[in-house]
Amino acid sequence: MTLPPEFHEIAKRVNNWGRWGADDEIGTLNLITEEVVRAAAAEARTGRRVPLALPLREDGVQAGMIPGRINPLHTMVQINQELFGPGTVACSDDAVTMGLQAATHWDALTHVSHSGRIYNGRPASTITAHGRAEFSGIDKAAPIVSRGVLLDVARAKGLDRLPGGHAVTPEDLAEAEEFGGVTVRAGDVVLVRTGQIQVYLAGDKHGYGFPSPGLSVRTPEWFHARDVAAVANDTLTFEIFPPEIDGLWLPVHALHLVEMGMHQGQNWNLEPLSTACAEASRYTFLLSAMPEPFVGGTGTPVAPVAIL
Amino acid sequence: MTLPPEFHEIAKRVNNWGRWGADDEIGTLNLITEEVVRAAAAEARTGRRVPLALPLREDGVQAGMIPGRINPLHTMVQINQELFGPGTVACSDDAVTMGLQAATHWDALTHVSHSGRIYNGRPASTITAHGRAEFSGIDKAAPIVSRGVLLDVARAKGLDRLPGGHAVTPEDLAEAEEFGGVTVRAGDVVLVRTGQIQVYLAGDKHGYGFPSPGLSVRTPEWFHARDVAAVANDTLTFEIFPPEIDGLWLPVHALHLVEMGMHQGQNWNLEPLSTACAEASRYTFLLSAMPEPFVGGTGTPVAPVAIL
Amino acid sequence: MTLPPEFHEIAKRVNNWGRWGADDEIGTLNLITEEVVRAAAAEARTGRRVPLALPLREDGVQAGMIPGRINPLHTMVQINQELFGPGTVACSDDAVTMGLQAATHWDALTHVSHSGRIYNGRPASTITAHGRAEFSGIDKAAPIVSRGVLLDVARAKGLDRLPGGHAVTPEDLAEAEEFGGVTVRAGDVVLVRTGQIQVYLAGDKHGYGFPSPGLSVRTPEWFHARDVAAVANDTLTFEIFPPEIDGLWLPVHALHLVEMGMHQGQNWNLEPLSTACAEASRYTFLLSAMPEPFVGGTGTPVAPVAIL
Amino acid sequence: MTLPPEFHEIAKRVNNWGRWGADDEIGTLNLITEEVVRAAAAEARTGRRVPLALPLREDGVQAGMIPGRINPLHTMVQINQELFGPGTVACSDDAVTMGLQAATHWDALTHVSHSGRIYNGRPASTITAHGRAEFSGIDKAAPIVSRGVLLDVARAKGLDRLPGGHAVTPEDLAEAEEFGGVTVRAGDVVLVRTGQIQVYLAGDKHGYGFPSPGLSVRTPEWFHARDVAAVANDTLTFEIFPPEIDGLWLPVHALHLVEMGMHQGQNWNLEPLSTACAEASRYTFLLSAMPEPFVGGTGTPVAPVAIL
Repeated sequence: MTLPPEFHEIAKRVNNWGRWGADDEIGTLNLITEEVVRAAAAEARTGRRVPLALPLREDGVQAGMIPGRINPLHTMVQINQELFGPGTVACSDDAVTMGLQAATHWDALTHVSHSGRIYNGRPASTITAHGRAEFSGIDKAAPIVSRGVLLDVARAKGLDRLPGGHAVTPEDLAEAEEFGGVTVRAGDVVLVRTGQIQVYLAGDKHGYGFPSPGLSVRTPEWFHARDVAAVANDTLTFEIFPPEIDGLWLPVHALHLVEMGMHQGQNWNLEPLSTACAEASRYTFLLSAMPEPFVGGTGTPVAPVAIL
Repeated sequence: MTLPPEFHEIAKRVNNWGRWGADDEIGTLNLITEEVVRAAAAEARTGRRVPLALPLREDGVQAGMIPGRINPLHTMVQINQELFGPGTVACSDDAVTMGLQAATHWDALTHVSHSGRIYNGRPASTITAHGRAEFSGIDKAAPIVSRGVLLDVARAKGLDRLPGGHAVTPEDLAEAEEFGGVTVRAGDVVLVRTGQIQVYLAGDKHGYGFPSPGLSVRTPEWFHARDVAAVANDTLTFEIFPPEIDGLWLPVHALHLVEMGMHQGQNWNLEPLSTACAEASRYTFLLSAMPEPFVGGTGTPVAPVAIL
Repeated sequence: MTLPPEFHEIAKRVNNWGRWGADDEIGTLNLITEEVVRAAAAEARTGRRVPLALPLREDGVQAGMIPGRINPLHTMVQINQELFGPGTVACSDDAVTMGLQAATHWDALTHVSHSGRIYNGRPASTITAHGRAEFSGIDKAAPIVSRGVLLDVARAKGLDRLPGGHAVTPEDLAEAEEFGGVTVRAGDVVLVRTGQIQVYLAGDKHGYGFPSPGLSVRTPEWFHARDVAAVANDTLTFEIFPPEIDGLWLPVHALHLVEMGMHQGQNWNLEPLSTACAEASRYTFLLSAMPEPFVGGTGTPVAPVAIL
Repeated sequence: MTLPPEFHEIAKRVNNWGRWGADDEIGTLNLITEEVVRAAAAEARTGRRVPLALPLREDGVQAGMIPGRINPLHTMVQINQELFGPGTVACSDDAVTMGLQAATHWDALTHVSHSGRIYNGRPASTITAHGRAEFSGIDKAAPIVSRGVLLDVARAKGLDRLPGGHAVTPEDLAEAEEFGGVTVRAGDVVLVRTGQIQVYLAGDKHGYGFPSPGLSVRTPEWFHARDVAAVANDTLTFEIFPPEIDGLWLPVHALHLVEMGMHQGQNWNLEPLSTACAEASRYTFLLSAMPEPFVGGTGTPVAPVAIL
């Protein structure tokens, strides 16, 4: 079994290999120029800060369906320990074990490969157990601070959330753009709201993951045409799941990460942001979403913040 | 053994218990108002982004001196796994185990207690193994985005780095303030550069931790007088180590975290920022330093970014 | 709420505090004398070895009901890495994160406390985050090698497995003793088979844990009267769950671990042993069930083996 | 660079591929027959039990030289937690993260490969991140209970411990055999004592690992000729380190694990056993050294016990 011709046709149209040189490891993050950041800072008009990460805890979004991707196990190694003798200042220390893709996270460009290749045509075999990702590890990602744009697809349609089977199309994105009175431009980080995270927040982990609304295989071309720097949303699978085309699994991952070299984010809680943007009647903001620099990491938890 | 009278005298002068109400869990982060954030955003004049986190890797700053505080152990759980059959899109996933205070991090207000109390007078016994920190866990910390000020104490003195035994005094801070042409004000996040992290970067983990320059027990009053929101620096111990006053261990921790309710950061790599500020002749910037929201966490890795 | 009078009455009758001295940390393991071991070795008549541990894997018995008690997360840190250059011998290394009570395990005597006390009357506060169990940690457990006796309660009743609500009584134990043609004696490690683990093996983790057959609060006296060294069985909760007496949770744990100082084992797979004993018409054997010596551990995974 | 001809010559002479069928995954463990176990049990003459594992703790034998192979990080997830309300029975639970080869351990046959092959000629590529070892994982290892033989090479030479540069030769093994008045036979588990673990026990982790006495590349033939089931010793590297033949790293690992299919153990504390055997003037015993059944594991901690 190989990927179908329609995948390869789209891939050809959105491919960015070589665009920023043979040595490039960060893809569309190159589009976040100093000018872009400067303009992004101007979006912080009211100073209101909206955090977008889910709490990190054992009762997180993972429901045990993806082997090894465990919710944070948070443990104590010291509790009020008087390190220097009785009556001295006491310390508490803790530790965590977690899957790097388990919570609100960024996928590194190396999170998926297809046909034996990762972004910029490098061999997938450059990902190893001891070295982790030799190229395009999450530690290489340039600081992700840019203009954020919320495309509130659910709200644009007058819905609380999109139904499980809804594939978010380019037309949906355009509709949300118009609804928000915004034009997506080069270097933007686009946040696509489906409302699906409400299912998790209501306590249904299984229903959160499946069936899920998510990006259609047709959207990468839309992002590519606008030179978007990164995309994140409020679902477990990012793209519609189960997939639109029978037997074609994770095509949006492959197009974004491998072909375009575009980082993508999942499990972002966009509910408070949706409210804040609606209240402000403004769908752009300064976004800071710094990857934790795990050397060779194929993903990272992230605590993004929108500053309106 | 109990804490000496001089500690309690300073404690009285800087104490913020009750200042933001009996229910408050975030202390001086209350000082980051929307107005402060709005003004902070205006500091992003050039759009240059300078990341301040050390790479997260097994060869991190911990040298095994603090039990349980392990450097990140980064492991693979999937490498190019064709989840859906041969020839399909392949996934790579990873996991990490690490001490929450092991790398570039924020201390939560609960990281230390003294005399059985944490910030706002709550009992230290509210920190437990199963519940972790019931109050003032790092997940409670308001989004840490504010004006950053680099007090480049080493550069102000014409030094590459302060010597191991140097206690950074209020006079040193004032000198660096003047050197930088800046006045620290309410809601600022102050970054104090000693240059000590160069010792780690040069490969000497033991020398990095001990002896270390760091904040003097006299500095909390200086920060308190200016209503600083948070302080971070480029050392393992934050405060001078071994301590200035014989037998008084970690007094600055106790004053900041317990008395003032002020978050503090350690192991921040301020070297590139020092260069950038010197080049720009400007020592203020927009700082985003979002805690990862570990529920009940007594600390968190952080990937701060300064935007000049 | 405190423990009811009936608990304290039984506790008085089975209490072993001080029996082996005020310094003792191992309780009934003292009953495994060299003579007992010598006689136990004589039970290995055919040389048939029957392992009793469940496989250690992410899909283990834990169903997420007990916070922090995670199934083994097994990850790779090296895969066929040619450490010394291309063409040299290649190494594979792995790591694990797991709850010490998550799989086939022994409870240390410190696993539970009641009324502020652990075995031998020591304060429960001797268990701390940094020091773990100061007394009676699992590393202190003497080598657990003794005569094993299978009390096959299910088979003695002609059942595949006991129903969920069945409390195993002293009478049931006596019935199984008679069925097996064996007399339990001092120093024995008694394995009580309910058959409940079949529910897990059939894929129903939730049904495995609840409702579960298990030991009645009346059995500790039976074990005490016979000076049994340790008891293990094939359930998640060890004792009947939900409990026999409304509001009296985990009384058997408290009687065994705290009062008697008797180690107990859970999630032991006794199915193959049941078959082997039935085939041999013999219910005694040499048992080796060595704790992994985690310093201060309140439990340990164990890979027991019966040698018939 | 490839393995030198002398390696391949020895490999040919000791190779066991196909000996127990093309499907075999356990190699020389096949030699532990029921008859062997029965005879082994008869070695337990006094009932004295001698445990051979080092304590599992953060301050273990690993000195940070082997990436990813971390000492046990033992953390608490519950401390005296009254799960069912105030005054009820309280529970303490803990968790661990550790390298499977970090402490007293068995190497699985898959721990090393050479020339792209593991034991029985299977491709090394059958070891993956998601599936771990598809063949010959440590969970496949038959119960390791057999006759143990201590070859006390150091004591036979009248030494406390062998010097760092000492390669243990077949002649040394024969000398220790004679010293112990024992003849190694088929199915035995041979424990080779160098005394090197004293260096670790005295607090010198670096000196423990390097330079280390250990098995010579000539010993696999000696074990092969006697049909030994498994070999363990009291060093970090098992074989002499640095190696005897310049540029030929880990040849004994490759011969034992890949060619012979013989499990090997490292970091076994043989000091108390040496004393016990000397006192008893007897160097054989019943040995139980059960692998923890990590599914697909390339190694496992083990808590072996010798019963004299």
